[in-house]
Amino acid sequence: MNQAAPAAKTTQPGLAPLLNVRGGRRALEFYLAAFGAEELFCLADDHGQIVARLAVGGAEFWLADEAPDHANFSPESLGGSSVRLVLTVADPDALFQRAIRAGAVEVWPVADQHGWRLGRLRDPFGHHWEIGKPLSPPL
Amino acid sequence: MNQAAPAAKTTQPGLAPLLNVRGGRRALEFYLAAFGAEELFCLADDHGQIVARLAVGGAEFWLADEAPDHANFSPESLGGSSVRLVLTVADPDALFQRAIRAGAVEVWPVADQHGWRLGRLRDPFGHHWEIGKPLSPPL
Repeated sequence: MNQAAPAAKTTQPGLAPLLNVRGGRRALEFYLAAFGAEELFCLADDHGQIVARLAVGGAEFWLADEAPDHANFSPESLGGSSVRLVLTVADPDALFQRAIRAGAVEVWPVADQHGWRLGRLRDPFGHHWEIGKPLSPPL
Repeated sequence: MNQAAPAAKTTQPGLAPLLNVRGGRRALEFYLAAFGAEELFCLADDHGQIVARLAVGGAEFWLADEAPDHANFSPESLGGSSVRLVLTVADPDALFQRAIRAGAVEVWPVADQHGWRLGRLRDPFGHHWEIGKPLSPPL
């Protein structure tokens, strides 16, 4: 977060991933379309570089243009991603297909495995998402 | 998640980062010590490679040994991290210092900036954490 960041809607403890991307504006549009994400805010600097805060199904994440000078590398710059994003939703099949239609690439399809209904995709910015839900009732 | 994963404690929508690391066992011990994280479960294969689920202040994240053949790269393999982990806690100063004592390296210190009290550190496995809380009252 290199720019002014409005206060969170909540001060509750939480952990939100901040995705470094190449092409922040395009990435923002992708996540809105692919996941039906809500844009909580988006700040842009004079060069069009953005920091945005999004929510999908109530779960928040951040998005920012990469800044290699500040050790903020996109997957494209690194040649891979160091963190997977495990997104739990009520209907993983539907959300997975929606993301594919928006431009994501299937890594493996949604299937019942290891107690989860789960699939994995790579988004156009190189981030990997595992989209699923537990099959068993809550513990 | 390449191994059997017990059902989540909750089926509520959520987004949890899964950190790829080199040295899963050591990383697990680090996150328990550095953040006072709770170990929800840890599964190991015959080679000692782990998948673990942790919670810090109620916020969950995953941890797994890297598997480059499956595009699961650690920051050490990539030479950087593609996702920052924004951890909101009641006392960021205390948690930041605790993590430093456990072996994390300060990137910039905790300070009031952009409406947050916020600091950034790099953990011994190459993941970057921004630890803070909003200074303003909730919107």
